[in-house]
Amino acid sequence: MDEPDTAVFGGHASNLSTGELLRRYRQVRRASLEICRPLETEDHVVQTMPEVSPPKWHLAHTSWFFETFLLRPALPGYRVFEPGFEYLFNSYYNAVGRQFPRPRRGLLARPTVATVLDYRAHVDAAMERLLADLDTNRRPDLGQIAELGLHHEQQHQELLYTDIKHIFSVNPLAPAYAPGLPASPAGDPPATGWVEHPGGVVTIGHLDQGFAFDNELPAHRRILGPFALARRPVSNREFLAFIEDGGYDRAGLWLSDGWARRQREGWQSPLHWRREDGEWLEFTLGGLRPLDLDAPVCHVGYYEADAYAAWAGARLPREEEWETFARTVPVAGNLAASGRLQPAAAPDATATSAPVQLFGDVWEWTASPYAPYPGYRGAGGAFGEYNGKFMCNQMVLRGGSCATPEGHVRPTYRNFFYPHDRWQFSGLRLAKDL
Amino acid sequence: MDEPDTAVFGGHASNLSTGELLRRYRQVRRASLEICRPLETEDHVVQTMPEVSPPKWHLAHTSWFFETFLLRPALPGYRVFEPGFEYLFNSYYNAVGRQFPRPRRGLLARPTVATVLDYRAHVDAAMERLLADLDTNRRPDLGQIAELGLHHEQQHQELLYTDIKHIFSVNPLAPAYAPGLPASPAGDPPATGWVEHPGGVVTIGHLDQGFAFDNELPAHRRILGPFALARRPVSNREFLAFIEDGGYDRAGLWLSDGWARRQREGWQSPLHWRREDGEWLEFTLGGLRPLDLDAPVCHVGYYEADAYAAWAGARLPREEEWETFARTVPVAGNLAASGRLQPAAAPDATATSAPVQLFGDVWEWTASPYAPYPGYRGAGGAFGEYNGKFMCNQMVLRGGSCATPEGHVRPTYRNFFYPHDRWQFSGLRLAKDL
Amino acid sequence: MDEPDTAVFGGHASNLSTGELLRRYRQVRRASLEICRPLETEDHVVQTMPEVSPPKWHLAHTSWFFETFLLRPALPGYRVFEPGFEYLFNSYYNAVGRQFPRPRRGLLARPTVATVLDYRAHVDAAMERLLADLDTNRRPDLGQIAELGLHHEQQHQELLYTDIKHIFSVNPLAPAYAPGLPASPAGDPPATGWVEHPGGVVTIGHLDQGFAFDNELPAHRRILGPFALARRPVSNREFLAFIEDGGYDRAGLWLSDGWARRQREGWQSPLHWRREDGEWLEFTLGGLRPLDLDAPVCHVGYYEADAYAAWAGARLPREEEWETFARTVPVAGNLAASGRLQPAAAPDATATSAPVQLFGDVWEWTASPYAPYPGYRGAGGAFGEYNGKFMCNQMVLRGGSCATPEGHVRPTYRNFFYPHDRWQFSGLRLAKDL
Amino acid sequence: MDEPDTAVFGGHASNLSTGELLRRYRQVRRASLEICRPLETEDHVVQTMPEVSPPKWHLAHTSWFFETFLLRPALPGYRVFEPGFEYLFNSYYNAVGRQFPRPRRGLLARPTVATVLDYRAHVDAAMERLLADLDTNRRPDLGQIAELGLHHEQQHQELLYTDIKHIFSVNPLAPAYAPGLPASPAGDPPATGWVEHPGGVVTIGHLDQGFAFDNELPAHRRILGPFALARRPVSNREFLAFIEDGGYDRAGLWLSDGWARRQREGWQSPLHWRREDGEWLEFTLGGLRPLDLDAPVCHVGYYEADAYAAWAGARLPREEEWETFARTVPVAGNLAASGRLQPAAAPDATATSAPVQLFGDVWEWTASPYAPYPGYRGAGGAFGEYNGKFMCNQMVLRGGSCATPEGHVRPTYRNFFYPHDRWQFSGLRLAKDL
Repeated sequence: MDEPDTAVFGGHASNLSTGELLRRYRQVRRASLEICRPLETEDHVVQTMPEVSPPKWHLAHTSWFFETFLLRPALPGYRVFEPGFEYLFNSYYNAVGRQFPRPRRGLLARPTVATVLDYRAHVDAAMERLLADLDTNRRPDLGQIAELGLHHEQQHQELLYTDIKHIFSVNPLAPAYAPGLPASPAGDPPATGWVEHPGGVVTIGHLDQGFAFDNELPAHRRILGPFALARRPVSNREFLAFIEDGGYDRAGLWLSDGWARRQREGWQSPLHWRREDGEWLEFTLGGLRPLDLDAPVCHVGYYEADAYAAWAGARLPREEEWETFARTVPVAGNLAASGRLQPAAAPDATATSAPVQLFGDVWEWTASPYAPYPGYRGAGGAFGEYNGKFMCNQMVLRGGSCATPEGHVRPTYRNFFYPHDRWQFSGLRLAKDL
Repeated sequence: MDEPDTAVFGGHASNLSTGELLRRYRQVRRASLEICRPLETEDHVVQTMPEVSPPKWHLAHTSWFFETFLLRPALPGYRVFEPGFEYLFNSYYNAVGRQFPRPRRGLLARPTVATVLDYRAHVDAAMERLLADLDTNRRPDLGQIAELGLHHEQQHQELLYTDIKHIFSVNPLAPAYAPGLPASPAGDPPATGWVEHPGGVVTIGHLDQGFAFDNELPAHRRILGPFALARRPVSNREFLAFIEDGGYDRAGLWLSDGWARRQREGWQSPLHWRREDGEWLEFTLGGLRPLDLDAPVCHVGYYEADAYAAWAGARLPREEEWETFARTVPVAGNLAASGRLQPAAAPDATATSAPVQLFGDVWEWTASPYAPYPGYRGAGGAFGEYNGKFMCNQMVLRGGSCATPEGHVRPTYRNFFYPHDRWQFSGLRLAKDL
Repeated sequence: MDEPDTAVFGGHASNLSTGELLRRYRQVRRASLEICRPLETEDHVVQTMPEVSPPKWHLAHTSWFFETFLLRPALPGYRVFEPGFEYLFNSYYNAVGRQFPRPRRGLLARPTVATVLDYRAHVDAAMERLLADLDTNRRPDLGQIAELGLHHEQQHQELLYTDIKHIFSVNPLAPAYAPGLPASPAGDPPATGWVEHPGGVVTIGHLDQGFAFDNELPAHRRILGPFALARRPVSNREFLAFIEDGGYDRAGLWLSDGWARRQREGWQSPLHWRREDGEWLEFTLGGLRPLDLDAPVCHVGYYEADAYAAWAGARLPREEEWETFARTVPVAGNLAASGRLQPAAAPDATATSAPVQLFGDVWEWTASPYAPYPGYRGAGGAFGEYNGKFMCNQMVLRGGSCATPEGHVRPTYRNFFYPHDRWQFSGLRLAKDL
Repeated sequence: MDEPDTAVFGGHASNLSTGELLRRYRQVRRASLEICRPLETEDHVVQTMPEVSPPKWHLAHTSWFFETFLLRPALPGYRVFEPGFEYLFNSYYNAVGRQFPRPRRGLLARPTVATVLDYRAHVDAAMERLLADLDTNRRPDLGQIAELGLHHEQQHQELLYTDIKHIFSVNPLAPAYAPGLPASPAGDPPATGWVEHPGGVVTIGHLDQGFAFDNELPAHRRILGPFALARRPVSNREFLAFIEDGGYDRAGLWLSDGWARRQREGWQSPLHWRREDGEWLEFTLGGLRPLDLDAPVCHVGYYEADAYAAWAGARLPREEEWETFARTVPVAGNLAASGRLQPAAAPDATATSAPVQLFGDVWEWTASPYAPYPGYRGAGGAFGEYNGKFMCNQMVLRGGSCATPEGHVRPTYRNFFYPHDRWQFSGLRLAKDL
């Protein structure tokens, strides 16, 4: 790592001035702490399934990122906070070294939360020095790595929300992370319907000067057939009709691997739904609440999304279809900044003929396997492990969710999870051929 | 199943005359028996891993297919051979009913091989009656279903070879299925190199009148960038260089899921390779033999193929790239009819500037996840389960292998397996961007 | 193994004359073949759970025993049949060498049944030579080892019955091994009741000159309190009352490990019982039959036996209690020679005040963990692995079953299985303190 | 639980006066808090394997015991602290109700440690009221239950030490629970040798008026042969000789189940031993330290203890042999009160001809399976689940360890663990027949 490539990641030099970068650094780092503020110390420690990381691990790992990729190689005289952390908080970078096994993160009582906070402060103080000095630095890639580190931390901010939700959800005491969360706005059930597209040759992928991950590159052309996209995501009310029509028990609606998984794990509803005394409830970051029927369905995996689409006589959109529409609307919606932390029915769903809720509320499963774009070139060294090595067995999701930090998502942004993953704020929107 | 759609499968009516169909029926059915002729009774019974089926199961299941989809619904007065077989030999058709669990097929001592052969004879006699009467039959789809049944049986013929090879391979006595198999032809190591393509808009998918599976439809256009395809598949000699360069031990070359699998299963070489006293051997259907260095590497999974490509500074071809070249060459090569049952170096590799060995020898892993083509419509009812429900988590392979029956493969043919699957005759060919 | 101790096993020289030994050798070896005569070739191959061995494995392993422990070391000029068998058919003798993994025995298509029979004939011919020459042999231990080999083969004869039963039982076609098996004799339900014993100091363990396994030695004294033993084993009718009283659903009746196992495996009845259309059936070697209510309950593990005893307000007998009574009655009963191959109600249960059915019908679980007797000394070398290394985690069963060869069982005979094992002909008899 | 038997447990009324009981209650309850005082909040939460419980779980469960068995049924007007705790902190009492699954205790972030301490204070305040009023209470069993609850809490105090040790040991940062622990006293290596016993009829089991668990009852006679017991436990130095002689790699020394487990888990030394740069270290509650060669070997399971004894040409003592000697010496030794929290060489090992270190240092594995004594009667209701349901598959250990609370152990005390368990302070002492 002593001499990373100039074009370390994504091919863009950072567009941010030193001042802007420092301001963003402070803001993003502070936001992670804000998310954890309502937690008790004990909440920071547990790991409720292998995919979940203890919150203190997220707080440490995001600091490790800056320490490993900026401070160690580029800040003269930097003192490593604790040598053992290199191993403990390396997530999956083989180029850096061995990693403490992911499914065992919940076995680590130490370092304590207080020590992790000290670690963050130690890294932040050093980063302030490094960033202040950035303009005079002979290495033009440092700003770019710092910017990557901030986007990386934002990804972990969303994971903090989803992991905290899972940690709280498995506890029989059903604690609430944020008891006062606002409910979904009342109003008429939002209308749905189809928005059509004639097809043709479109360009997808990142074209701007702004930041993008390498998996959004290169921009390239694709051919679309005529298709239609649903105006809004599938709602809980609609998904409930699928359940009541036996959707979870009709093998013919399911992908083969999906049906096997559903059988093995006994799925009967989206994750976090519960049926008590004949009522459907959902576990939210605000605690256990009656199911919000008009809100977008959430915490479904790809298998369930695909089965729903088959049941509805439609299909999931391909990512190029989704992106084609997404380029035409503002990047705005029910993101984490709304404070709802739960998908909500769009109050203005009838005000426009364009699709609504493309951004925010729920990540939308697409029919596209997560694969490299033609001409994709992963970054070199450890950064090459950021995205490229996951391009197998996962599916692309688009649009961000109610847990996505403001400014993090883009029309070209490609999220990806395994088709069985259900603990993210993931939902679906239908498409069909014309 | 009483009233299947006319367009039951793939959208084509069968082009075969009744006479041709009958002739092909006899020939294909006979070929399955020929494959099993060298086996002992005991060889028909065992299942060496969940993916492998006992040979007698293949013999019975292919008969079950005709009984279930043709004889029961369409042959007046047909007497079912044994009612219990509906459950035992249903592979995965939920629309037909429950299935005996796949991983337990090797627990079935009964029916005996003799009874399975009686079952085949019983079905064949009835099929002769049905096919003889086909022209006068009011149901135009029956010929199409029969043709599908024959292609289905050919798929199982290839599986018979691969499953027999696995069954023999795990036995410490290392028995030979065909002790007299010819060795690879001697000669100079075949030259390799690149064949270039300028890119542009191409059409892929099935366009002919002949038979195709529904997953080859509809034909549609795609945009290719300029690329090059290797003239021949990667050889054992080349793959050995990867091994000797630490390929199996360098995490940075591997997809994340691939590395995890390689660690868990301890892969150090392709399946069926063995190192004894410093020599590399390979287990073949002819027994244990010295590794044929000039033959295409075989029995590698997608993970290994992708890691090799990364090591070689190249990539795997996308299926549209492969198909674009495959449309330009004859469908001929080292298929099962050659009797070799093992990949072999192409003796004429320098005689042409086109890619060689596109057909036969080894199925070639592509970089394409197995996904529906735009506009794909699966068949209705049970036939809809033939292909569509597997379009997740698997990768496309192209071109057939040394175990593929003559006449079975096409330029548009899409085979698919999980990225960790290694017991098929699967290899790879490199591609690169220009 | 070149120079085994004179006292190789159990401390007794064989009492059999050469002629008797040869006669018994022929008889025992023939009996194994007789058991397999009704089998199809395919039935010899499969392994339906790790504890079950394929019948051809039993046939080969028992021959391996003679080859390994007598022919190789002691017959001049003996030609090993097939060197690979040393590894394939070694069950668990580390002193001999590595063993093919037990759970994978069902993956071995080869050697064929015919080859295994050739192996037996090869061994038998050599054994005839060895035994004929025994008197002139300078090694007095050979007769003892041969006798051990015959008792060993008899143990495998019982396993052949239980394994064949399991193999047939898991097949949805429910084949019958012996369709014409006689039913249980009709008659009044046999009376039960208690037979009392005043307690005191008793001697248990083998005292005779005849053969015994080392685990029956040394004879020693124990102190018994006053107790009573049930006159006969628990019947199916009685066990059904336990089931109908919720016995399988009342945690309070069960040992902790038993309850965990019952939960994990979903036990609701003895193994081989089935409930169809409101009727209780049992799978027997004669096929599926109505449950014989008056016969001793069979195919229960120790956990179920102990739970039943708790439900009945009694306990299981300790092995010294059982043996004390068993020394007073003839060694006779419903053993394999009766041809029933299923436990049966004792027709003469009221004719005597002594306990009945102590021998035959079902192995009776005792409350005694399988542990070495005080002063126990295992044999040296490989024979030390015969019994001693299993003296942990298993429970003692006594008395033989309807599948035990005539002449094999004794009052002092200690059988042993894990408390969860249910595929043997195992039942229970109650005891209580006075 | 409304009307428990008078003789609820063990058949003894409590001998303690109300004042004594109250004093002991306060002392025992305080001791649990003392053990946890050095812990960070985070240390209370994690569960490093299914057998380990988070320290806060121990603190809560021991309070639950008093709440469930005394306060709810017997203290008028008692207010339950939190109804959800009945489920969360029930360990294994089916008679009380369902239990939160043991392997998932580490998933519980809540209740917090602070809440658990509040729970303890709430229970303690109520217990003070109950105990103060005990003499006037009409229920003579309450004192007995309270006394049982205190012995129960002492058992969890030892588990707190062993679980904390395990929690700290798996952390790559290797934190120390008590950095200042004293080292083993220096001095000559303690001599060993044999102490002989002529055998005969002995009485074992609890005879006094003091407290005993039901598994120590009834006292009864057994016959011993002449035997010898080692003067002291096996030392680390001796165990190291076993390792260096290939003890962990010689199958012939091991029980069959032990060898299978050793293979599966890759044991090469006692748990908590580590080999770094050619030096043997041991992880202690004082952190990582050089192996104390003269101290008793610790953290070996029964399988290792038995293999060592086989290697040494000896055997493990039966529990009646151990108890016979233990009745002759004072109940004193290196118990938790010594503050060492690690076994230590006995400084005075040569001062007496009797066995030394029978109490304290390490629990000594005996050759005795954990089984009920003849005439054993478990208590009724939930208390019957305390001991009796575990009398299968486990082995008896005797004598207490360096983590056992003062006053908790007795000559008749029977501890029990599975033969593979290694995380307790468990070692061994040899015996042999004379």
